[in-house]
Amino acid sequence: MTWLNRDVISSLDFNREDLMQLFNEAQEMENYAKSKLNILDGKIMATAFFEPSTRTRLSFEAAMLRLGGRVLGFGSVEASSVAKGESLGDTIRMLDSYSDVIVIRHSLEGAAKYAADIATVPVINAGDGTQNHPTQAMLDAYTIWREYGRIDDLTIGILGDLRYARVVTSLIQLLSNFKVKLRLISPEILKPRRELLDFMNMRGMSYSLHLNLNEVLSELDVLYVVRIQRERFPDPVEYERVKGSFKVSPESLIGVKDTLIVLHPLPRVDEVDHRLDSTRYAKYFKQSALGVPLRMALLKLILKGD
Amino acid sequence: MTWLNRDVISSLDFNREDLMQLFNEAQEMENYAKSKLNILDGKIMATAFFEPSTRTRLSFEAAMLRLGGRVLGFGSVEASSVAKGESLGDTIRMLDSYSDVIVIRHSLEGAAKYAADIATVPVINAGDGTQNHPTQAMLDAYTIWREYGRIDDLTIGILGDLRYARVVTSLIQLLSNFKVKLRLISPEILKPRRELLDFMNMRGMSYSLHLNLNEVLSELDVLYVVRIQRERFPDPVEYERVKGSFKVSPESLIGVKDTLIVLHPLPRVDEVDHRLDSTRYAKYFKQSALGVPLRMALLKLILKGD
Amino acid sequence: MTWLNRDVISSLDFNREDLMQLFNEAQEMENYAKSKLNILDGKIMATAFFEPSTRTRLSFEAAMLRLGGRVLGFGSVEASSVAKGESLGDTIRMLDSYSDVIVIRHSLEGAAKYAADIATVPVINAGDGTQNHPTQAMLDAYTIWREYGRIDDLTIGILGDLRYARVVTSLIQLLSNFKVKLRLISPEILKPRRELLDFMNMRGMSYSLHLNLNEVLSELDVLYVVRIQRERFPDPVEYERVKGSFKVSPESLIGVKDTLIVLHPLPRVDEVDHRLDSTRYAKYFKQSALGVPLRMALLKLILKGD
Repeated sequence: MTWLNRDVISSLDFNREDLMQLFNEAQEMENYAKSKLNILDGKIMATAFFEPSTRTRLSFEAAMLRLGGRVLGFGSVEASSVAKGESLGDTIRMLDSYSDVIVIRHSLEGAAKYAADIATVPVINAGDGTQNHPTQAMLDAYTIWREYGRIDDLTIGILGDLRYARVVTSLIQLLSNFKVKLRLISPEILKPRRELLDFMNMRGMSYSLHLNLNEVLSELDVLYVVRIQRERFPDPVEYERVKGSFKVSPESLIGVKDTLIVLHPLPRVDEVDHRLDSTRYAKYFKQSALGVPLRMALLKLILKGD
Repeated sequence: MTWLNRDVISSLDFNREDLMQLFNEAQEMENYAKSKLNILDGKIMATAFFEPSTRTRLSFEAAMLRLGGRVLGFGSVEASSVAKGESLGDTIRMLDSYSDVIVIRHSLEGAAKYAADIATVPVINAGDGTQNHPTQAMLDAYTIWREYGRIDDLTIGILGDLRYARVVTSLIQLLSNFKVKLRLISPEILKPRRELLDFMNMRGMSYSLHLNLNEVLSELDVLYVVRIQRERFPDPVEYERVKGSFKVSPESLIGVKDTLIVLHPLPRVDEVDHRLDSTRYAKYFKQSALGVPLRMALLKLILKGD
Repeated sequence: MTWLNRDVISSLDFNREDLMQLFNEAQEMENYAKSKLNILDGKIMATAFFEPSTRTRLSFEAAMLRLGGRVLGFGSVEASSVAKGESLGDTIRMLDSYSDVIVIRHSLEGAAKYAADIATVPVINAGDGTQNHPTQAMLDAYTIWREYGRIDDLTIGILGDLRYARVVTSLIQLLSNFKVKLRLISPEILKPRRELLDFMNMRGMSYSLHLNLNEVLSELDVLYVVRIQRERFPDPVEYERVKGSFKVSPESLIGVKDTLIVLHPLPRVDEVDHRLDSTRYAKYFKQSALGVPLRMALLKLILKGD
C-alpha cells in the first residue's frame, strides 16, 4: 500500500513492508536531521495538541522545518477554540482548510480516527486515549532496528505500566509484524488488558507475563521502560511497596547481556536512574534524537509519496 | 485609495471600490490557498492576541505562511509582557520594531486604533471591543459575493446577538457599501444599539427589526447566525424562554428559498444544529476556509501594494 | 577567540575585542533588521523559556527569522515537559538533538551553564538567576556605543534595584572592558552585592554608590534605569518612602547634560514616566529595537563564524 496521503491512526494499519520502507527512509533522513531538505517547501503542518506534549510536538515541528515546511497550530486546550465550546469536528474542519497535514494529540480514545474521517488532508495520531501512539511505537521499533540491524529474533522486555501507558499497546501491535519474544513485567494491578492479551494470542506472538524483572533480565536484548504513575494505585501503600522493583539503575542491571539496550519514551521521572545515562546500555537519548529523522521520513512519505 | 501600508481598523475605512479590489485579489488567491507564493518572502507578521482566538489567528498565520512570510508573537495576555504590567503602547512599539505588520486582538474598544497611531508598520484589527472585527466582515461579505456573484439586491438576515457580537456592527457597516435589504432578528434585550440604527438610517440602508425568524425566513437569500451568550441575560429564565427561537436546524428552515445560504463566523456551540451541516444551505465551513485566501489578499495588498 | 560555536553564558566570557567585533557586525545587521538575509537558511533555533519573556524571546525569534532560520520551542514551564517532572538535563538533550542553537531562560542561577555543559550545540543565556543576562548587557552597551560612538570616558549612572535585577551585574561586568565611571544609585536595601563590589575593585573600575540620583545627575552621560519591585522590601512602609526617588520624569531631569541618554531594559511599569518618551533623552525604545540587529549579529557569529 502506498504511503501517499495515508492517515496514521493505529499501529495496526501498518505491515512489515510498510515499516521497512519507513525505516529505510528514516535512515536516509538521518543525513539531513541537522541540515535541510526542501522537499516540503510550501507545505503547512497543523499541530492540534489538545493535551500538552513537548517531545512529540517539537520533534514533529523539527521534522517539518528540516524538510522545508511550515508549522501552525496550538499546544493546549486553553489555547484553542475548544475552550469556547467548539466541537472537535469543527476544529478539525478549520485546520483541514488551513493546512496540508494535521498532527493530533487528544485524551479521548478514537479522537484521531474521528478527525481523519472528517479531514480531507492526512491525519497523524500523536497519541490519543490510553492505547494508541503509533509514531512513538514506530520510533521505538526503528531504534531497535538501527541498533541491532533487525528486529526478528530479539527478546524484548517491557517494564512498568502495561495497562494505561498508551505507547505499550501501540508498540506491541507494531512488534507483531516481527518474530520477537516479549517479556512483559508489571505490578499485578498494571498488567496488560485482556484485549491486548487476546491480540497477542491471535497473532501467535511469543510472550510471558512477570511481576519481577529479575526473572527475565538475563535473556533480554532490549529493556523498554515506561513510567508507573502513583495515581494508578488505589492504595498508596501498595504503590510504595512495589515502586522500587520497577526502577532501573546500574545495580539492577547485574547479569544482563553485554548488548542489552535500555529504551524509554521519555520524559522520565525517576524510573530510569540518571547514573545509567553514561553506561553503554542507555539508548533512550539516541531514541529521542531519532524522533526527528523518523518523523521526517513519515511526513515525506505521506506528503510526497514513496 | 491605495491599499499599500494601510491600517485595517474599522469596516468604515473601506468603500465599495476597495472591497471589490480585495475580493478579486482573494479570488485569485484561492488558487494558492493550498500551495505557496513567495511574494512576502522575508516579511514578518506579528500576532498580538491579548484575547485568545484560534480561527482568526490561525487563518492569518496560514495566510502569511502561504505567501512565503514568517510569523511571531503571542496568543494570550499570560504569554506576554502585559502580564508584567507593560502598557499596550510599549508592547506595540516593541512589535513595531520586530515586524512588518501587526495583527492585534484586544478586549478594549479602540485598542487597534491606538496601536495603529503608535506603530509605523500597518496594523490590522483582528477584533477589538464589541463593535469591530473588520476582517471577519470582509470574509463574510466575500463569501456572499462568491456564492451569489454579487452582494447588491440580496436580502440578508442577521440572527442572534446584535448588540454585543463584534462582527455584527462590522458586517453591517461593510454591507452599507451595497444595496441590500437587512432583516435583523434578535431578542428584545439584544437588539442593535442606537448608534448602529442611526448609522443605517444615515446611510439610507433598508432594514427592519424582528423578534422572530419566521417573520422573514421565506424572503432571505442569506441567513447569518451569531451566538447568543447566556451571560447577556440578567434573568436566566428569560434566556431559557427565548434561546430556542434563535437556533437554526433543518426543521427551522421550512419554507426557505432553495438558494438560501446559512453563514456563521464560528466557533458555534449549538446555535446551528450539526444536522444542518450536510444540507445545501450550510456554507459556514466554506466561509471559514475562505478566511485564508481573503487574508492572503489583505496581507498582499497591504504589504506589496495593488 | 573565534565566535563560532561559542556559548554565551556570562558577560565575563567576552573581552573588548569580542565586543567590538559584535558591535560592528550588529551595525551591519541594522541594514537587514527589516528585510531578510538567507545566511541561516536551514538552521533551527530552540527557545527554552522556563520563565516567560516577551521582549527577549521575540527579539531572538525576529533575529533568527530575518536571517532565514526557523524557530521552535516553548515559552513557559507549563508548556513544557518539565510540567511532567522532566529534569532540565533531559529537556536540554532533547532540544540539542532537534536544533542548531538553544536560547534558554531560567529562574535558577547556573541553569544556562549547566545546559551548555550538556548540549553539543551552542547555548545562549537569555537570563538566568539574578546575576546573568549577557545578551541584554550586550544590547545595552551596543546602544551606548551607537549613540556616543564610544563607551570609554563616559559617566554611566545605574538607578534602581542593583541587587536582584539580573541585567545590572551583567552590564557592569561587560562595561569592565571599557574605561567608564559608574554611578550606582539605589535604596540602601538594594545596594550591589559584595561580590559585585569586589569584582569592580579587582578590575580597577571607577565607581561610587549613592542613595540619591541628584547627587550625580548633572555629570551623567547615560542614565540606565531598572525597576524596583515592591516585593523586595520586607517593610511596605519603607517601599512607599523611597519609591518616588527612583522614578524618572521630565521634572527629575533638571540640570542634566544636553547629551544625556536614558536607557531601560523594558518592560517598564512606572519607573520611567511616559511623558519622558517624547524628550530627546529617551533612548529606551531605540534600545529595544536594536535588540534585533544585535541578536542577528550574535546568531550569525555563533552559527556562521566571523
